[in-house]
Amino acid sequence: MVKVAIVGGTGYTGVELLRLLAQHPQADVRIITSRAEAGLPVAKLFPSLRGHYDLRFSVPDVAQLGLCDVVFFATPHGVAQAMMKDLLATGTRVIDLSADFRLRDVAQWEHWYGQKHGSPEYLPEAVYGLPEVNRESIRSARLVACAGCYPTAVQLGFLPLLEAGLIAPHSLIANVASGVSGAGRQAKLDLLFAELSDSYKAYGSAGHRHLPEIEQGLRAVQKAGEHTAEVTFIPHLLPMVRGIHATLYADLLDESLDLADMQALYEKRYAADCFVDVLPAGSHPETRSVRGSNVCRIALARPQARKRIVIMSVIDNLTKGASGQAVQVMNLMCGLPEQTGLMQAALLP
Amino acid sequence: MVKVAIVGGTGYTGVELLRLLAQHPQADVRIITSRAEAGLPVAKLFPSLRGHYDLRFSVPDVAQLGLCDVVFFATPHGVAQAMMKDLLATGTRVIDLSADFRLRDVAQWEHWYGQKHGSPEYLPEAVYGLPEVNRESIRSARLVACAGCYPTAVQLGFLPLLEAGLIAPHSLIANVASGVSGAGRQAKLDLLFAELSDSYKAYGSAGHRHLPEIEQGLRAVQKAGEHTAEVTFIPHLLPMVRGIHATLYADLLDESLDLADMQALYEKRYAADCFVDVLPAGSHPETRSVRGSNVCRIALARPQARKRIVIMSVIDNLTKGASGQAVQVMNLMCGLPEQTGLMQAALLP
Amino acid sequence: MVKVAIVGGTGYTGVELLRLLAQHPQADVRIITSRAEAGLPVAKLFPSLRGHYDLRFSVPDVAQLGLCDVVFFATPHGVAQAMMKDLLATGTRVIDLSADFRLRDVAQWEHWYGQKHGSPEYLPEAVYGLPEVNRESIRSARLVACAGCYPTAVQLGFLPLLEAGLIAPHSLIANVASGVSGAGRQAKLDLLFAELSDSYKAYGSAGHRHLPEIEQGLRAVQKAGEHTAEVTFIPHLLPMVRGIHATLYADLLDESLDLADMQALYEKRYAADCFVDVLPAGSHPETRSVRGSNVCRIALARPQARKRIVIMSVIDNLTKGASGQAVQVMNLMCGLPEQTGLMQAALLP
Amino acid sequence: MVKVAIVGGTGYTGVELLRLLAQHPQADVRIITSRAEAGLPVAKLFPSLRGHYDLRFSVPDVAQLGLCDVVFFATPHGVAQAMMKDLLATGTRVIDLSADFRLRDVAQWEHWYGQKHGSPEYLPEAVYGLPEVNRESIRSARLVACAGCYPTAVQLGFLPLLEAGLIAPHSLIANVASGVSGAGRQAKLDLLFAELSDSYKAYGSAGHRHLPEIEQGLRAVQKAGEHTAEVTFIPHLLPMVRGIHATLYADLLDESLDLADMQALYEKRYAADCFVDVLPAGSHPETRSVRGSNVCRIALARPQARKRIVIMSVIDNLTKGASGQAVQVMNLMCGLPEQTGLMQAALLP
Repeated sequence: MVKVAIVGGTGYTGVELLRLLAQHPQADVRIITSRAEAGLPVAKLFPSLRGHYDLRFSVPDVAQLGLCDVVFFATPHGVAQAMMKDLLATGTRVIDLSADFRLRDVAQWEHWYGQKHGSPEYLPEAVYGLPEVNRESIRSARLVACAGCYPTAVQLGFLPLLEAGLIAPHSLIANVASGVSGAGRQAKLDLLFAELSDSYKAYGSAGHRHLPEIEQGLRAVQKAGEHTAEVTFIPHLLPMVRGIHATLYADLLDESLDLADMQALYEKRYAADCFVDVLPAGSHPETRSVRGSNVCRIALARPQARKRIVIMSVIDNLTKGASGQAVQVMNLMCGLPEQTGLMQAALLP
Repeated sequence: MVKVAIVGGTGYTGVELLRLLAQHPQADVRIITSRAEAGLPVAKLFPSLRGHYDLRFSVPDVAQLGLCDVVFFATPHGVAQAMMKDLLATGTRVIDLSADFRLRDVAQWEHWYGQKHGSPEYLPEAVYGLPEVNRESIRSARLVACAGCYPTAVQLGFLPLLEAGLIAPHSLIANVASGVSGAGRQAKLDLLFAELSDSYKAYGSAGHRHLPEIEQGLRAVQKAGEHTAEVTFIPHLLPMVRGIHATLYADLLDESLDLADMQALYEKRYAADCFVDVLPAGSHPETRSVRGSNVCRIALARPQARKRIVIMSVIDNLTKGASGQAVQVMNLMCGLPEQTGLMQAALLP
Repeated sequence: MVKVAIVGGTGYTGVELLRLLAQHPQADVRIITSRAEAGLPVAKLFPSLRGHYDLRFSVPDVAQLGLCDVVFFATPHGVAQAMMKDLLATGTRVIDLSADFRLRDVAQWEHWYGQKHGSPEYLPEAVYGLPEVNRESIRSARLVACAGCYPTAVQLGFLPLLEAGLIAPHSLIANVASGVSGAGRQAKLDLLFAELSDSYKAYGSAGHRHLPEIEQGLRAVQKAGEHTAEVTFIPHLLPMVRGIHATLYADLLDESLDLADMQALYEKRYAADCFVDVLPAGSHPETRSVRGSNVCRIALARPQARKRIVIMSVIDNLTKGASGQAVQVMNLMCGLPEQTGLMQAALLP
Repeated sequence: MVKVAIVGGTGYTGVELLRLLAQHPQADVRIITSRAEAGLPVAKLFPSLRGHYDLRFSVPDVAQLGLCDVVFFATPHGVAQAMMKDLLATGTRVIDLSADFRLRDVAQWEHWYGQKHGSPEYLPEAVYGLPEVNRESIRSARLVACAGCYPTAVQLGFLPLLEAGLIAPHSLIANVASGVSGAGRQAKLDLLFAELSDSYKAYGSAGHRHLPEIEQGLRAVQKAGEHTAEVTFIPHLLPMVRGIHATLYADLLDESLDLADMQALYEKRYAADCFVDVLPAGSHPETRSVRGSNVCRIALARPQARKRIVIMSVIDNLTKGASGQAVQVMNLMCGLPEQTGLMQAALLP
């Protein structure tokens, strides 16, 4: 059994981690922290977990956390970096769901997150937690910075074409829509039901923090000598709780490529990835087909056989986009089969 | 492994059965039928099941069905009764999710369902599939008529008080609200998204088919000599997919009873029922706390300490209200622990 | 033209008032106040009003408010009572959408609202703003305390039967469900989209502030000598923005009354009320049929011809349940036809 | 008063026309037809219209229709073309909300709609009903083919840049999301609440019928000598009833243009258009800000100051995208002020 601690368990990635780990045969959640809710039984805050956990939220204590095999951070940015030095010194391993260690470049991190980075010395060591790209380095990592929700959907959608050098690096567009849970469990006016229900809008068009993460990830897989990938990234807010749908556009460098070739490329690229499902060409993946599941479903289209390829990619932002991916990472780090505890079918309808 | 067949797999109780059985360690789904979709891969109709099933829908064939240990009917009423004689003759056992064998009284069945019953000879044998009432008879049953969705929520809510003879039998009111999936997967104008979204209404106030089932179930547990229970049952349609919330009202026969006594009564009554969770008094169960789970959560209130007790009861209409209950029944029939394959935490948020 | 001021315009009743008054041919909104947003153009906070208002929010100033013909309070409780003395001294007239002057009994107000009342001397004068009951006194009132949202739906549903003395006063049950906008525009965790979407629950079963208002209103119309009406009132929260649906239950004192008699009673009672629409018996009013409109639609049922009558009543909580009713009151106070500016058809679908 | 007939009044554009015309001071709806519902009172099918219409649906009769000043077609494609010859012979004027006369090229119409065109002789005469482009020709038209919902949102978004020749004609992408009412009121499985709620997907990526309409409209305003505009158009289905949000992408031909220049261009282009509202740069229009209103709101962004401009455009698909636009067209045809009856503020929240 893997002894597990979770720092910051009162948000949506926290409760999703608890849901997934409750049905994980090899995980034993020993600690879940929350300064604000210390003393409160977890199942009181989240009645859906009644019968699954006897734990109470506790104040984080590095020594106690250090006794666990892995420590998840399901916290806002800034928290993990403040505890990282002491925590790693205990010998435990860390899976950070926050953005603290995702960007390699400190300056860029500090620009986008508007604060000084608290432990930049761990940035070089941190492995970017997207198993479909970094599976092997994750296995032996001490610190994994799990990929963000939008970056997971966008990177998995673009990767095969970009790795193969088939698309123009400056032509990339990611028009992405997310369920509201992606904005977190925060008491903000603009996250109210009566503000978001029955409506739809773009946001963050001037620059979203996931943009540098997406571009960093895409550039890392480009062939040498190419222009650096640039993405126009426009996120949107959907009137629903879970699910991300990325509609990705790119110009083909060689218009003679046909859709079947690209379909074959995607199927081959992801043949060994149990959580990426390439649908038949012409399909339209629905977000509900991955609700509560760790799968990313992808489909390709080439409208009117013109030069522009369209990739559609869906994930559950809380599962493959956050907590499910973190459990997948834990499985890899702990030598378990990658799918352990993650094979439930999506909840549909 | 239990060899399983499902008759009628294209509706919402069908896909929910498939979801639950995909994660059941002792079930092996061999056959799933649909006349309309025969030949179609299950995972094509329900992409959420890609990677979980290689099955195709097939035309129902009694001989083939008879080779399975249990046959589920996830069909509209009328289908199971037509096949029952031949099917039982094969020696298999049947779990019927439809209404065909729920009412003991043929005349009443024919009145409410507006057609002649096709095999009334099996009504006396059929066990009513509400494990919290009939656990032992279910174990050895050959034919189980699973309780309906509304009847499950309403009966579990009223049972302890009615068994104990504490409430006036003519004072019962069941004000119940259901998610839309309860109406089934049928191409009807009044089930369209644009007709139901962002709106709420009662329906069936003149008489809903679940009323006689509810009253039959409640009367069966009343103490001898009491007036026959009568329920005013008003169902409502919620703008959401899954979930039933029953708000139940009854007049106490003895107003000196306090809420703590009744709380204790409920906790004791359901102490051995792994899928009934009595919340602390003063709680308000949310339907999302049971989304995708087989649990019924119940809470009590006694507003202004007046004579009227209020019971709130929530289930997922597709899980504890249909397919989860059917799997629970299967577990009992097959000698498996009752919880097998049904312990996933609810999907929240 | 009626010169109008609105105190507290940043909530949902505020923006609804602005929407309705924008299309009112005789209203001229001169002032809209908000301490928090002073200086901000109204149309910046509510882009739906771009092109309709050039106003900015301002800090409330009694002298300026006093220059208007009517002052609406669209504020939380406690605000109107603090300004009332000074404001009425200016000679203007007040339409209070808050709960400050709804209860006749100071002690009861202070009990339910948990604070000392700031100007109890105006309670006797305040007219309860439900035009279907108090039309004439509203016309000449200086201070009107508009009926709350739940109380409007519940009272209009029960009134005809209670006025006629046909139902048992202790048998009343109001099972009511409201859209989320009824909870106001406040940054609270439990009002988040991700907390409320796709779920349903009761709340406030121990006692909701609208209960004493409902009982006060019902008792006021009872025949002399009857037992005092008591209501079991359970509110519920719907996963939608606008709309209240009341499902009301009462025991008939005389079971020989038939549904047609009661239907006739309702039609006669509301014949002169332009905003109460009695549907044919057997109908089920949908909340969407009154979305954005000032109409209350009511239908009757008597399930299984038993002793219990069921009344269904729907309103838009922000329109007939708040701002529309307030405009209706303004029309009466200002000698305008009651329907002025309020005749838009509901937005359906 | 304008005497109005509506052919095909049982769909969502029909009920929206009725809603808008009920509050139009110069319109008198004399006839509303439906073969299927002939004899049924309109207010029985749409209870939201109780008190607004005494009309019943009738079987279409050309002679009767011809007595009206204008005849709206709110029918599926194919219906208007079959009646056009006889109808125009009566001397009445026609506003067609369907796609029958939108494409100038018969061959293209027949290709996309999969049937022979029934009266191609009227295609040259039909004026494309987008007042912001064809205001003057609409005034005197005998037959107006109202612009489709997607085409309205997309064209209004691209027009200023395209007219000015500032963007690369092959770089255009229209990533558009629509509420479900756009799919019409048809009893289809894939339009059920339980299929669409809480989910999101693209559809029609291989080619949607609005694509040729969009490209025809955009090409019509291009400067002479440019490459022909080509649009990658991907529609998506939102889990909500009303609203279209277009996110439009184009490459600037001259990267030295700054956002302020383009903002000024849009404001100037639409200065005389009462139903196009250009938001300040950096805004994100929400679909709810136009719910039930005839306004199109547009905002511009230029992420990371790169070569790609992003235009966001929202409309209510049933109002500016269909029935509101049709009433706007009627106003122009009948010499009324363009805004008559269309100035209600959007319903928010």
